[in-house]
Amino acid sequence: MLPFSRFVLGHRSIPSLRHRRRQRRLLSISSSPNVPLSHPTYMIWASNTSLGKTLVSTGLASSFLLSRSSYAEHRKLLYLKPVQTGFPADSDSHFVFSRLCSLASLRSSGGPSLSFSASNSVIKSSLPAAIALSGRNSLPGERIPAFCDVSFREESKFLRTAGTCSAELVCETLYAWKEAVSPHLAAERENCAVPDSLLVEMLEKHLTASMEGVFQKESKQDFCIVETAGGVASPGPSGTLQCDLYRPFRLPGVLVGDGRLGGISGTISAYESLKLRGYDIVAVVFEDHGLVNEVPLLSYFRNRVPIFVLPSIPLDMSNDLVDWFNDSEAVFNSLREIMVSTFSERIQRLNDMPKKAGDILWWPFTQHKLVPEASITVIDSRCGENFAVYKDRKGGSITQQFDACASWWTQGPDAALQIELARELGYAAGRFGHVMFPENVYEPVLECAELLLEGVGKGWAARSYFSDNGSTAIEIALKMAFRKFCNENDVLPVRSNTVGRCFDLKVLALNGSYHGDTLGAMEAQAPSSYTAFIQQPWYSGRGFFLDPPTVSICNNMWIVSLPAGMHSGDLYNVVTTYSSRDEIFHKSRDKSDLAQAYLSYISEQLVSFSDKEPSVQIGALIVEPVIQGAGGMLLIDPLFQRVLVNECRGKKIPIIFDEVFTGFWRLGVETAAELLGCVPDIACFAKLMTGGVIPLAATLATEAVFDLFTGDSKLNALLHGHSYSAHAMGCTAATKAIKWFKDPKSNANILSEGGLLKELWDPELVARISSHHSVQRVVALGTVFVVELRAEGNNAGYASTYTRGLIMKLREDGVYMRPLGNVIYLMCTPLTLPSTCRGLLVKLLRRLQQFGEPSS
Amino acid sequence: MLPFSRFVLGHRSIPSLRHRRRQRRLLSISSSPNVPLSHPTYMIWASNTSLGKTLVSTGLASSFLLSRSSYAEHRKLLYLKPVQTGFPADSDSHFVFSRLCSLASLRSSGGPSLSFSASNSVIKSSLPAAIALSGRNSLPGERIPAFCDVSFREESKFLRTAGTCSAELVCETLYAWKEAVSPHLAAERENCAVPDSLLVEMLEKHLTASMEGVFQKESKQDFCIVETAGGVASPGPSGTLQCDLYRPFRLPGVLVGDGRLGGISGTISAYESLKLRGYDIVAVVFEDHGLVNEVPLLSYFRNRVPIFVLPSIPLDMSNDLVDWFNDSEAVFNSLREIMVSTFSERIQRLNDMPKKAGDILWWPFTQHKLVPEASITVIDSRCGENFAVYKDRKGGSITQQFDACASWWTQGPDAALQIELARELGYAAGRFGHVMFPENVYEPVLECAELLLEGVGKGWAARSYFSDNGSTAIEIALKMAFRKFCNENDVLPVRSNTVGRCFDLKVLALNGSYHGDTLGAMEAQAPSSYTAFIQQPWYSGRGFFLDPPTVSICNNMWIVSLPAGMHSGDLYNVVTTYSSRDEIFHKSRDKSDLAQAYLSYISEQLVSFSDKEPSVQIGALIVEPVIQGAGGMLLIDPLFQRVLVNECRGKKIPIIFDEVFTGFWRLGVETAAELLGCVPDIACFAKLMTGGVIPLAATLATEAVFDLFTGDSKLNALLHGHSYSAHAMGCTAATKAIKWFKDPKSNANILSEGGLLKELWDPELVARISSHHSVQRVVALGTVFVVELRAEGNNAGYASTYTRGLIMKLREDGVYMRPLGNVIYLMCTPLTLPSTCRGLLVKLLRRLQQFGEPSS
Repeated sequence: MLPFSRFVLGHRSIPSLRHRRRQRRLLSISSSPNVPLSHPTYMIWASNTSLGKTLVSTGLASSFLLSRSSYAEHRKLLYLKPVQTGFPADSDSHFVFSRLCSLASLRSSGGPSLSFSASNSVIKSSLPAAIALSGRNSLPGERIPAFCDVSFREESKFLRTAGTCSAELVCETLYAWKEAVSPHLAAERENCAVPDSLLVEMLEKHLTASMEGVFQKESKQDFCIVETAGGVASPGPSGTLQCDLYRPFRLPGVLVGDGRLGGISGTISAYESLKLRGYDIVAVVFEDHGLVNEVPLLSYFRNRVPIFVLPSIPLDMSNDLVDWFNDSEAVFNSLREIMVSTFSERIQRLNDMPKKAGDILWWPFTQHKLVPEASITVIDSRCGENFAVYKDRKGGSITQQFDACASWWTQGPDAALQIELARELGYAAGRFGHVMFPENVYEPVLECAELLLEGVGKGWAARSYFSDNGSTAIEIALKMAFRKFCNENDVLPVRSNTVGRCFDLKVLALNGSYHGDTLGAMEAQAPSSYTAFIQQPWYSGRGFFLDPPTVSICNNMWIVSLPAGMHSGDLYNVVTTYSSRDEIFHKSRDKSDLAQAYLSYISEQLVSFSDKEPSVQIGALIVEPVIQGAGGMLLIDPLFQRVLVNECRGKKIPIIFDEVFTGFWRLGVETAAELLGCVPDIACFAKLMTGGVIPLAATLATEAVFDLFTGDSKLNALLHGHSYSAHAMGCTAATKAIKWFKDPKSNANILSEGGLLKELWDPELVARISSHHSVQRVVALGTVFVVELRAEGNNAGYASTYTRGLIMKLREDGVYMRPLGNVIYLMCTPLTLPSTCRGLLVKLLRRLQQFGEPSS
Repeated sequence: MLPFSRFVLGHRSIPSLRHRRRQRRLLSISSSPNVPLSHPTYMIWASNTSLGKTLVSTGLASSFLLSRSSYAEHRKLLYLKPVQTGFPADSDSHFVFSRLCSLASLRSSGGPSLSFSASNSVIKSSLPAAIALSGRNSLPGERIPAFCDVSFREESKFLRTAGTCSAELVCETLYAWKEAVSPHLAAERENCAVPDSLLVEMLEKHLTASMEGVFQKESKQDFCIVETAGGVASPGPSGTLQCDLYRPFRLPGVLVGDGRLGGISGTISAYESLKLRGYDIVAVVFEDHGLVNEVPLLSYFRNRVPIFVLPSIPLDMSNDLVDWFNDSEAVFNSLREIMVSTFSERIQRLNDMPKKAGDILWWPFTQHKLVPEASITVIDSRCGENFAVYKDRKGGSITQQFDACASWWTQGPDAALQIELARELGYAAGRFGHVMFPENVYEPVLECAELLLEGVGKGWAARSYFSDNGSTAIEIALKMAFRKFCNENDVLPVRSNTVGRCFDLKVLALNGSYHGDTLGAMEAQAPSSYTAFIQQPWYSGRGFFLDPPTVSICNNMWIVSLPAGMHSGDLYNVVTTYSSRDEIFHKSRDKSDLAQAYLSYISEQLVSFSDKEPSVQIGALIVEPVIQGAGGMLLIDPLFQRVLVNECRGKKIPIIFDEVFTGFWRLGVETAAELLGCVPDIACFAKLMTGGVIPLAATLATEAVFDLFTGDSKLNALLHGHSYSAHAMGCTAATKAIKWFKDPKSNANILSEGGLLKELWDPELVARISSHHSVQRVVALGTVFVVELRAEGNNAGYASTYTRGLIMKLREDGVYMRPLGNVIYLMCTPLTLPSTCRGLLVKLLRRLQQFGEPSS
């Protein structure tokens, strides 16, 4: 398109693609680090390069270790520089080390005796940096492109007599490169990259291990500083932006701002980039340049974040900035105080949260009496698929748990999509806030509707009706279906404004179905614990409910279980065992004996319903295609549902698919209707539609359905709505997520042919689990892996607590699960890597093998 | 607190407060500018100062005006510099002007003959700048601190023979200051501030007026560039950040990035600050510094935003950069192409949107057949209380309309809160995405629950149950109330797991009530158009419905209208006319004859219900306190509701307040219960709770209600929930909004005593409107102003289209309203200034005076 290449880079450029894909991979496999909370750990960010991050680190170290005013007698500060370029000429850890040594010797001369110990180490470096450090032209045994283990270490100590205070400084550079450029460039030019996952692991290790040290005292107080390189969004060694790279730790931060002309803007923007990634910034500090930048910054921060202004740094650094550090001592003391007190407040709050939660929250579907305070999970944040969970054991820590509930069946983003969605949602709030929907159009709703109709509604749907959640989407679907039924069956002059009930309408549905908790949705489902009189006295069950055949894996075979009502003589020769999932879903089964048997069964049941209640009409068929979720994660025989749909269509009964759970790749395809191979008149979507971050639902319908609501009177229109119908933020998230999931460029799990997800659950492990003696059945489909445990009596059913022990063990393994009675499941996102899923299955299998053994 | 002042500025600093309040005021009164869309208009932003914005403007101007390849024969480019400091030494508009003149004379020498005309003007400046410009030591008649009208203008022209191409450049500096510092500092130091509203107005005027010019040709093509000062978040003259200051225009932009070391971070952060405010950036351009910054930027932008790299700018500027402009011509041509084509695509899309909306969307509560394409509103964005609406008349424009529907009763933010919410929502998405709620706790939900219980639930509520919208909150409230009723009245062994219906429960409610559109909520409301068989065949109306007395202003008097059922002899002496709203809400009415009459009426009605259906129990009272919203904006006599609540409490009937519409300052107090002076057992909140930007609902309950759901079995728990229950984003928005609304520091409408909102509706105008002959009644309370128009027959009621003409006229006046039948209303946010409300009433009154006249 463009006739020149060097100076114009547009959207078709190849390097960008290659680079992006590499980056995403690296980020998504980044490990899930644990962060100790026994002492304050802060990240030092800056809004640009060369603003004095290292001076701030040094000032803080000096304040913490050498200040006379403060704290415990024995103090230790760990300074970590994960990424250093320009090494060895530039070494921030050496700077902190050497400056602290000077300051310590100066300050300790007059005051109380202080034992001071300091060290500086460099762990790994590129070959050119290692050569430069060694002072030679080459190193013996050098290899390219591996990292060199640099055993560089410098120490300084002056110990005093017993009973005095002690202060220990540990400085460490984790990775160093020689060129004084951005880390991604240095890594490339020195052919010495470090993957994000490795860097995260290394940082995690040093955050904990390096806190062990020379002084092991009772009254010890620790502090840790991690200093970034360049600006907040400067690339790390892999090219991943540092604010993304370090996000799994979500350490609280101090932002070193810019006191120069233009610095207000840079400081605010850097702060906003950190906020957008969920970081907490406890203070902003910058060097005075005489421009009083603190005034507009204070105004911007509206008293939320304190601002500290440091004296101007002298151009003449000849006396090692000793005077400057003296002049700024008070500022650093205050900054340190804020950092220490904010840390204490955070820990206090985290410790208080379980009790407060138990006192004032009211959880849905939860018997509060069965939730002891100790079992309440305190979620500090999430990064992609992982919860960061606070544990108060061992001095406190943040540990990571894979969210195997997919945050209750909605969750879609990995770490990369999460930040994309955060940016898009911020944009939508900034551009639209909320704008009302009726008779209006705005970009997010139009694009969302277009994507829905050409995606999940492709080939049949013509209109999109928006609401807030699955339950409201179902209520709307029922209203649509009943209108269609009445019209097509001439049972009512629909266009009239008749008030009052003319006759009884019921739905045809399956036992075990679940469609939501508002009354209309409940009425369409079979009686269950949810619908009991003490739950909803108004429930009457306005449906005819069929027992469906189910499919599951037992001992590595796919077995169809037929409902009791079907067991008659003509099933003698029917095949109900299959060797693969593909066979179950194959269309050739339409011609099988079983298909015929299903048809007879359905017809018989319909006749018996009609005999029982002759005045009642069946106004709609409503099914969850393929998998019934809340009903216990049952895989319904797709052949049965196909026969049922065709039969109803023949009888002019409108068909509703409840794809609230199954839609948007949950089952490995964009819509479960694809697996059935037939289409509805109306379908409901929610949950994963927005990527799983914000509520929004859509009821799609054919144009024929829509037409029945048009006319000359408003009273014919569908008079159902919610204030936030088609809200801009929800539609924005949905457009982003829908496109992201289905694009092989952003979703590595999409097989480019056919728009299917890769197989996520390792077949061999699935087979082994399905053959385990404690396992009743297994279902593995798309992002869902289900295990029903063998259970009897009270151990079975929705209220069972049988699996609690197993679940708790798995949480210790870093897997957050919740049971549905004696059914447990792993649910991932459409973006989760097969290797991650494999890891989950391995952990599950190991715990299953212990389950039920005497020791457990 | 802190022992030093200059170098440490913390959260208690006084200047910050003063500054912030000034800023907010300025921003919120900023006018609502119209933007012409007849030609591309772009904002030039930069991630820092001194990155070459003006070079980019010049290059674009050159490409647009002088390029041989392109476009119409007659071209005009307007370059606007709203804010210039360092003037007259620095003048970007002069730079563009003079450089274009040089380039034009050079380039026109060889090619086709070109008539070129250019001018540069400076409109206003500070006195010091004006003095410097004049070259004198002072100016005659100088005044401080007003702005000087600077009649500075320079021109250059070379015209050729007829039939040739013509190009016109108009450069304008709107405001100039002398000191070369940030505008807010220059304005302060030169004692010459310009309020945001004035600057916005001035810019709006010049965006349109300055496009009139010397060449008026058919084939004319226009282009406009607005160049900002400093970085994206650099303060403007008032201290408001420029990205906030210019937000009402929401012009698309080009971001001048940073090619230096550290520049990747600054560029990305600046982009994110713009995104967070809803801006669209069509390209990023920066100067090459040999660091290949485009590679990580391309990776970040994932092919969404094209990146352009300009050749290095020579240090030696002696030849006026002519060579550099020649070298970069191809880049600027491509950049210009992107800007022109993106503009065309935008206009195309805006023009297509109404038709597409009519084709694929399905609006709630809307008879599509009655919505002609021309009446569909295309909402391009919103800023605070205003919609930015696209009109395709006169070459296209964006005009502003005050959203007097408060986006269907939810809207809370002004422009300042909108960006705060955008930042908080981005943060919540970045930190939490979505995390499931049951048995978990995370900061946003805990803080939100704390705020609810100490705010709207103060004094009675102990637990907060979260769901997605008002309708679900009501369904939950009913389940809670019924459990309480059954328990307290010993009508059911509640702890048992009885399945099936034991007896009939109904609610007690008021005629005209509305509680939502899901079946359970519908059942609790009286029959209406919404509940007709063709709308919801399952509706049966499970309530006893009382006719309530209503209150309204007629001819400037507050009149109580009693229900027909009450008109018996003992009402002879009852007072039903009041001179003020305060009298209506005064507690002294409890001792009035009317209170006694209400009590008798209620008792009689209860007896008659019980006589009619003796087997039915009243399981709950449910009312919208004070105002029935969807029922027609009826003010129910608060005395009546108080008597009713007390009577039900005496009969052990649980009390539900539906505050979905009335809560959170809608009626001028945080909760309408305060106006009634009595508390419920259960109350529902939604809409304004999140500030009106994102769906979330809460059902608050007393501890006594909660206790009935605890026990040893899960089956006793409240088995109702939605996947997004208490979602982090909703709770985050709610915590921000709840605190913002009630704090006098952020909400200028809060009277610090008593936590009341100021009177927003001018009493004199209210009186005049209430006395107008076409007006039946008026209600003015809190943020709500209601007018019922006199109407008869088909003109009355929900389906009436009687007011359509009036509504359309008001939209032309910049007021977006929607009728409820023959009832129209103005609804603002809790932050809307009384002066704005006054303006709305003036417009309404003017149109009312025309309404019904022959001409209308």
